[in-house]
Amino acid sequence: MKRIRLIVAYDGTNYSGWQIQKNSNTIEAELNKALSTLTGETIEVDGASRTDAGVHADGNVAVFDTNSPIPAEKFAKALNGRLPDDIVVVKSEEVDGEWHPRFAESTKTYEYRILNRDMPDPLKRNYTAHIYGELDVRKMQEGASYLVGEHDFASFCSAGSQVKTTVREIYSVDVKRHGDEIKITVSGAGFLYNMVRIIVGTLVDVGFGKIEPSEVQKILEAEDRSVAGQTAPAQGLKLVEIKYGE
Amino acid sequence: MKRIRLIVAYDGTNYSGWQIQKNSNTIEAELNKALSTLTGETIEVDGASRTDAGVHADGNVAVFDTNSPIPAEKFAKALNGRLPDDIVVVKSEEVDGEWHPRFAESTKTYEYRILNRDMPDPLKRNYTAHIYGELDVRKMQEGASYLVGEHDFASFCSAGSQVKTTVREIYSVDVKRHGDEIKITVSGAGFLYNMVRIIVGTLVDVGFGKIEPSEVQKILEAEDRSVAGQTAPAQGLKLVEIKYGE
Repeated sequence: MKRIRLIVAYDGTNYSGWQIQKNSNTIEAELNKALSTLTGETIEVDGASRTDAGVHADGNVAVFDTNSPIPAEKFAKALNGRLPDDIVVVKSEEVDGEWHPRFAESTKTYEYRILNRDMPDPLKRNYTAHIYGELDVRKMQEGASYLVGEHDFASFCSAGSQVKTTVREIYSVDVKRHGDEIKITVSGAGFLYNMVRIIVGTLVDVGFGKIEPSEVQKILEAEDRSVAGQTAPAQGLKLVEIKYGE
Repeated sequence: MKRIRLIVAYDGTNYSGWQIQKNSNTIEAELNKALSTLTGETIEVDGASRTDAGVHADGNVAVFDTNSPIPAEKFAKALNGRLPDDIVVVKSEEVDGEWHPRFAESTKTYEYRILNRDMPDPLKRNYTAHIYGELDVRKMQEGASYLVGEHDFASFCSAGSQVKTTVREIYSVDVKRHGDEIKITVSGAGFLYNMVRIIVGTLVDVGFGKIEPSEVQKILEAEDRSVAGQTAPAQGLKLVEIKYGE
């Protein structure tokens, strides 16, 4: 029996998210199906991040155990031949039998793309949130600076999650304009439910001048979801990378 | 009666191309349907470029004549409310009643994106051609330089087009690497059927070292489609802009 780790990229547009659900298309279900056909075993992967419906990934991580004689590094291409073309296993490798993608220490990096122009762009409709009106990126960056470090992010967590603590550590938040796109890149040790999307929604309020950058500090201190901005739409969000300190 | 010009962007993935066809989804048909509903007239647009199935556009151009009292510049947003979200009218404006998008002098710019890495990228599957193996971008640029200027492009034209002459003028071809993507940008006064995609297919042969850059000159001189490279896949191609010398 060996444990294999997969790096998984996907276009989340046509899925109800990562986690398996009855009567829904999910990334996890597709991986289980492809792996079970490939190995002849009943395989259930264990994923690092249960991304929501419409959210994308360059590098989500999953593991599974198998007795298959297929070499670990051959799984990627063998699976890609069996997966729909909006899911790609970028890499496969053997890991220690005790290693777990959610319990191992890691840095997760998310990217959020805003299309900031008058007209929508049909080629980016599934990969950006379209927000028109002038956004002040300098102010957004200033507001973001209050989020860096270890804080109680209760104000940035949607209801319905069961967590022991809402304290999390953010390593960096970068807000950059590239032409008519604004990219918000957030790195941290772990994230609460909808945390990145609520951070983006709040920074958009800052960008529009609805709230001052320094008010982000007060929103943190309130520990109250109702004082932060809206949850930004799913399709702008991508899980870029999970880096493990191995 | 006034003539209105539309700048049209679209994701070509789910369409059988621009031109209206029986029993097929086309950009032209969607525009006609939305315009006819909006104005109450029977409207048929006349487009600048009949892009193929799967080809995208940031700025194709179309005109139509109407007696509608709707101000010309209001058509864009009014149409976007009636069009599917993979077609967007970026701009609408009145033009002279004699002006025609195919007969007016113009510079067309196309962009072709190659994903040049081992694994496919699910988020780019509809917008790039995935080509693995080392491509020498410097050689591709050198090969491309032979195409600039006025030439007989018979070798770079698919059968089935009815044109008076296969002489065309290319103003520039740029081949650039951006990380794991190679972008080929081609500008010219006009293009033959599949011309950009055959240019890309030929430059890929140059990039792989199958043919020398200088052989591009010989392929031009042969005036024979069978000596050029393959027609590169549609989904990598985008009509970026049509610039009219007004």
